[in-house]
Amino acid sequence: MKNDKLKIAIVGSSGYAGGELYRILLHHPGALVTAVTSERSAGKPITDIFPHLLGLTDLVCEPLDPESIAKKADFAFLALPHVTAQEAAFQLHKRGVKVVDLSADYRLADPALYEKWYEHRHQHPDLLKHAVYGLPELHRERIRKASLIANPGCYPTCAILGLAPVIAKKLIDSATIVVDSKSGVSGAGRSPAMAYHYPEANEGLMAYKVGAHRHTPEIEQEVSLLAGAQVTISFTPHLVPMNRGILSTIYGSLIGPADTGKLHNVFQEFYRNEPFVRVLPPGQFPNVRNVRGSNFCDIGVHADGRTGRAVIVTVIDNLVKGASGQAVQNMNLMTGFEETDGLKFAGLCP
Amino acid sequence: MKNDKLKIAIVGSSGYAGGELYRILLHHPGALVTAVTSERSAGKPITDIFPHLLGLTDLVCEPLDPESIAKKADFAFLALPHVTAQEAAFQLHKRGVKVVDLSADYRLADPALYEKWYEHRHQHPDLLKHAVYGLPELHRERIRKASLIANPGCYPTCAILGLAPVIAKKLIDSATIVVDSKSGVSGAGRSPAMAYHYPEANEGLMAYKVGAHRHTPEIEQEVSLLAGAQVTISFTPHLVPMNRGILSTIYGSLIGPADTGKLHNVFQEFYRNEPFVRVLPPGQFPNVRNVRGSNFCDIGVHADGRTGRAVIVTVIDNLVKGASGQAVQNMNLMTGFEETDGLKFAGLCP
Amino acid sequence: MKNDKLKIAIVGSSGYAGGELYRILLHHPGALVTAVTSERSAGKPITDIFPHLLGLTDLVCEPLDPESIAKKADFAFLALPHVTAQEAAFQLHKRGVKVVDLSADYRLADPALYEKWYEHRHQHPDLLKHAVYGLPELHRERIRKASLIANPGCYPTCAILGLAPVIAKKLIDSATIVVDSKSGVSGAGRSPAMAYHYPEANEGLMAYKVGAHRHTPEIEQEVSLLAGAQVTISFTPHLVPMNRGILSTIYGSLIGPADTGKLHNVFQEFYRNEPFVRVLPPGQFPNVRNVRGSNFCDIGVHADGRTGRAVIVTVIDNLVKGASGQAVQNMNLMTGFEETDGLKFAGLCP
Amino acid sequence: MKNDKLKIAIVGSSGYAGGELYRILLHHPGALVTAVTSERSAGKPITDIFPHLLGLTDLVCEPLDPESIAKKADFAFLALPHVTAQEAAFQLHKRGVKVVDLSADYRLADPALYEKWYEHRHQHPDLLKHAVYGLPELHRERIRKASLIANPGCYPTCAILGLAPVIAKKLIDSATIVVDSKSGVSGAGRSPAMAYHYPEANEGLMAYKVGAHRHTPEIEQEVSLLAGAQVTISFTPHLVPMNRGILSTIYGSLIGPADTGKLHNVFQEFYRNEPFVRVLPPGQFPNVRNVRGSNFCDIGVHADGRTGRAVIVTVIDNLVKGASGQAVQNMNLMTGFEETDGLKFAGLCP
Repeated sequence: MKNDKLKIAIVGSSGYAGGELYRILLHHPGALVTAVTSERSAGKPITDIFPHLLGLTDLVCEPLDPESIAKKADFAFLALPHVTAQEAAFQLHKRGVKVVDLSADYRLADPALYEKWYEHRHQHPDLLKHAVYGLPELHRERIRKASLIANPGCYPTCAILGLAPVIAKKLIDSATIVVDSKSGVSGAGRSPAMAYHYPEANEGLMAYKVGAHRHTPEIEQEVSLLAGAQVTISFTPHLVPMNRGILSTIYGSLIGPADTGKLHNVFQEFYRNEPFVRVLPPGQFPNVRNVRGSNFCDIGVHADGRTGRAVIVTVIDNLVKGASGQAVQNMNLMTGFEETDGLKFAGLCP
Repeated sequence: MKNDKLKIAIVGSSGYAGGELYRILLHHPGALVTAVTSERSAGKPITDIFPHLLGLTDLVCEPLDPESIAKKADFAFLALPHVTAQEAAFQLHKRGVKVVDLSADYRLADPALYEKWYEHRHQHPDLLKHAVYGLPELHRERIRKASLIANPGCYPTCAILGLAPVIAKKLIDSATIVVDSKSGVSGAGRSPAMAYHYPEANEGLMAYKVGAHRHTPEIEQEVSLLAGAQVTISFTPHLVPMNRGILSTIYGSLIGPADTGKLHNVFQEFYRNEPFVRVLPPGQFPNVRNVRGSNFCDIGVHADGRTGRAVIVTVIDNLVKGASGQAVQNMNLMTGFEETDGLKFAGLCP
Repeated sequence: MKNDKLKIAIVGSSGYAGGELYRILLHHPGALVTAVTSERSAGKPITDIFPHLLGLTDLVCEPLDPESIAKKADFAFLALPHVTAQEAAFQLHKRGVKVVDLSADYRLADPALYEKWYEHRHQHPDLLKHAVYGLPELHRERIRKASLIANPGCYPTCAILGLAPVIAKKLIDSATIVVDSKSGVSGAGRSPAMAYHYPEANEGLMAYKVGAHRHTPEIEQEVSLLAGAQVTISFTPHLVPMNRGILSTIYGSLIGPADTGKLHNVFQEFYRNEPFVRVLPPGQFPNVRNVRGSNFCDIGVHADGRTGRAVIVTVIDNLVKGASGQAVQNMNLMTGFEETDGLKFAGLCP
Repeated sequence: MKNDKLKIAIVGSSGYAGGELYRILLHHPGALVTAVTSERSAGKPITDIFPHLLGLTDLVCEPLDPESIAKKADFAFLALPHVTAQEAAFQLHKRGVKVVDLSADYRLADPALYEKWYEHRHQHPDLLKHAVYGLPELHRERIRKASLIANPGCYPTCAILGLAPVIAKKLIDSATIVVDSKSGVSGAGRSPAMAYHYPEANEGLMAYKVGAHRHTPEIEQEVSLLAGAQVTISFTPHLVPMNRGILSTIYGSLIGPADTGKLHNVFQEFYRNEPFVRVLPPGQFPNVRNVRGSNFCDIGVHADGRTGRAVIVTVIDNLVKGASGQAVQNMNLMTGFEETDGLKFAGLCP
């Protein structure tokens, strides 16, 4: 039976996204992880890096060799730093391996924008043209046909899902958008640094990269596409003392009268057939705890009569819908599985 | 296909154990939850109590009526307070419903001991005789044939799994056992109280019920069975600022020379075929984070030459192996499923 | 020497604000707590309620009797629920006791606004006229002469200190203000409830009372005073899994060109002589951890050229500058102490 | 007035102990910090390292130069790694500077024991003979006369204060001692590493260095002195997801009958005049939250009739009574201040 399964490589498997990909794929009905790469841990069992997977896998890490990966796997997830991912995607893609790249390297369609925000000239602009931005709620049909997916960033996933209905339906003035986002610390990755040292991050709360976070142009790109015009937004990320989760509070001036019922209807209609978006009833607002470990995005909305603003609150698990879960959702679409295969599990609460 | 599934009732579903039962059973290949009871939330969807299950179930809570439950379900999990569970188990059992009782009501074989520690006379001593203590690693064959399982307490599960090999193999002096246990706050249940109010529990750490915790006789009962003699232990529980997890540090004087390799071998041999016990290599000790959300018990051991003591460290997720996961494991055994059905999932890390 | 000290009553001493008042006043050079009231704990030592004060005080709680308090104390802090505080302030004030009321009862100058937001008709509108809003950075001279201070709310303190310079100097368009605030759980008080039960609040994050929080009119009152016109703002509070601290991220469209250096200068100038406001250098943003336990408010600012918005980030300890520390600061001003007496201590970090 | 103050150098000021020393000394009535050293941050203001001290000090870090320090300061605290501290203590001591060394370098009176546990030959065995172990509750009079104090480790302080009364009064069998200790993460220092990376440490709990922690011989040295014979103990440290605090649960077989009242009396008598030890009433057990930020050690005791064991629970703040607070207490004793000067502040709760 294992022979029938889609063979998967997780490239760059030592970070949190890699661990989550593994956790999710272990229970996927039609996929099998056949290779995991890690330069630092080459030769060691993956369970040395992720002891929580003990007893569930015997795979051993290998260094990243595109030729070898292409032999072992039909499909690759890249959980590598940007720039490194760029080249790996190119090497695997040209060998016929379908790729979901979890880095930022193929997210910005305009290579000049990439160069501006990532301070690195894009090395594969031709391949970039073929990449599809992997937010299924917006680009499902293009994802189905794609061979390279740029998996969205965690903040952009959370922000765009909150903005898409009101932008697409022209309910808010796109010149007034403020996205105030709060993330758990796993969003910063698995490399120890002072700001994430437990006694520094615990009982702490801060804004960071104010006006300068690299996820800004990614949100703007997708919102502009929906708006049919260039949109500029204020985006402020914050670091919150919790492991997982992003909550985005989104503000925008309503074009028409403030009517929460109507606003809610627009969201419900927009996401009616979406398996992973849950629009809460009017008056209810989401909590990251209810999506922890799951692929859901929960949304609550309010049209404020006093100020004439819409307030939209969205939550995701940054490592699942914000990274590895969405990556598997994209894989499902790209390879003909049911979109929800291996993903319709409940979160862990508490 | 749903008609072929084992029909399950979760009785008393508003607490954390109820929520975890639901989460696990949603993904069980052969079981289907057909009824959930809650007196306070009768008439409301279960997702009002557990918003993380939104989109995964439409069940509505009902009050506990044994007759009605017996019609809807072949199998019941009782996640009720003690005393209440006692009667519910009796009512359901006599109607032919197989029962796993997650309360303490049927754990102590001696009704006098129950009365002493729980300050309540046992109302169903006859049924008590038929109950089996549901720790599969010790009582697997009896569990398979049982119709009423007393699901072990969270602390006892963690402590007994650490003590069983050394007691069974007579490696330590049973008069010298100290079990120092540390639990996350979900172990205290879902009812708000001052000690568990966030600003009181967070950044706090305390021992409680020193020398007086009700799980003490439960640990002693099972250890005495293994020892073939009455064993008295020191057991101290502590409250740790985290949601889930128990870590038990167990001390006992070695009867023979201190040899960590040999001690490790005994554990490995004892648990060789156990699907949910992972004995770590010598020199490694477990972390609750690696079992969070999973049904695993991880164990590390040390034979200390300086003091002649064994130090055994065990961890579980108190809500999974310490409650709902173990309950499903028992259900699997009682009803002929594979023991690991629906349970061989990875934990959530981080 | 004790006889020379200002005699202080803490009325309603069983909550977190009461505990902090006690902690701070224990080290005040010229004040002495002579009475503490608590209905529920009357007759018990205050250290039963606050075991961290063991060895530092022997005071016993008494029920609230204005006559008795007026005999024992020259000055009273009211840490009571609103409505209750209203009457207690009246009773003590008319007996010549100077009062700092930490509730919301005397904060809104317009009794109609109070009735609208607090759903209770103000019982003492005459006294309300004499109350001064106790934010020393704005009303220092009026505070010095006041006999009744309405101590500002935690969110308003944090928000107003961030808005005051840009509103007073007309740097931002007051129609565009968004205040996105994030608070630790002690802000919700000391009464256990489901949302603050440790396993519910920990690893959770949510917006609450969106568009409806009672601190909104308080912020608007002070900002309108500064603007010289009625200002309406969007204010969204969030609950963050930490004990203490508020961080407010404030957005507003700049009237002139975006110049962070100039914006920073305005803040530095505005707060030049303030002992408890620390304006961080351009490019730096505050973290709640750096004000934990202290009376400081830290501020970082950014003028965003892309969007033309100012982003102002402010942090305070909600129990100190947001409650008890500011209350003592007001007491110092009202009674002729040095404004910083007993308050110039460092925070606790980590 | 500043000229009259004792001039203090904090040598190695970039870690948590250095920060706490600064926080405490800022409010000391008779001491003034005149120099702070940090190799990495030389030339930078101390507030770059500790932003919570902004506005409270303007001191600039300098490299460690004993000659320069000796000119600027009469007294030095060494918050350096072991081995480095050894030499610094020697250099400062010979220049007439009184020294409290917070490292382990002068704690073990036997240089062979030091070499065994710290894998480094002691370079100053002559100076070692003059060092006094700085636990005031045991060695107050020797501390008063000392010029070099070895400030106790955090775990030893917590363990020894719990063991001293029962060992001194020969109430428990010293061959049966088990010390199970749980520490907050600041105990691991301020250098980022994987185990202390927030998403790894948060919601985690582990034992570490089982049977091998370097604080073991330190505890044994002091307990042996009290016992008048060599004592060997089992000591297991654990890492708990909180910033500060140590809780030690201590077990030992009672020599006489189990009588909690009597046991409690012995503790109360032993610590009757101690300003920083609070013995809780029988039936009460301490919580680290109640000593957070303070120099107190809280103790609860239980004599267990079932097992014949004493269970003693002690808590301290590892950075205060377990490090910097105790260091200042020692300084007070060495220099003729009141022992409690600058230290009798309440902790921060919550």
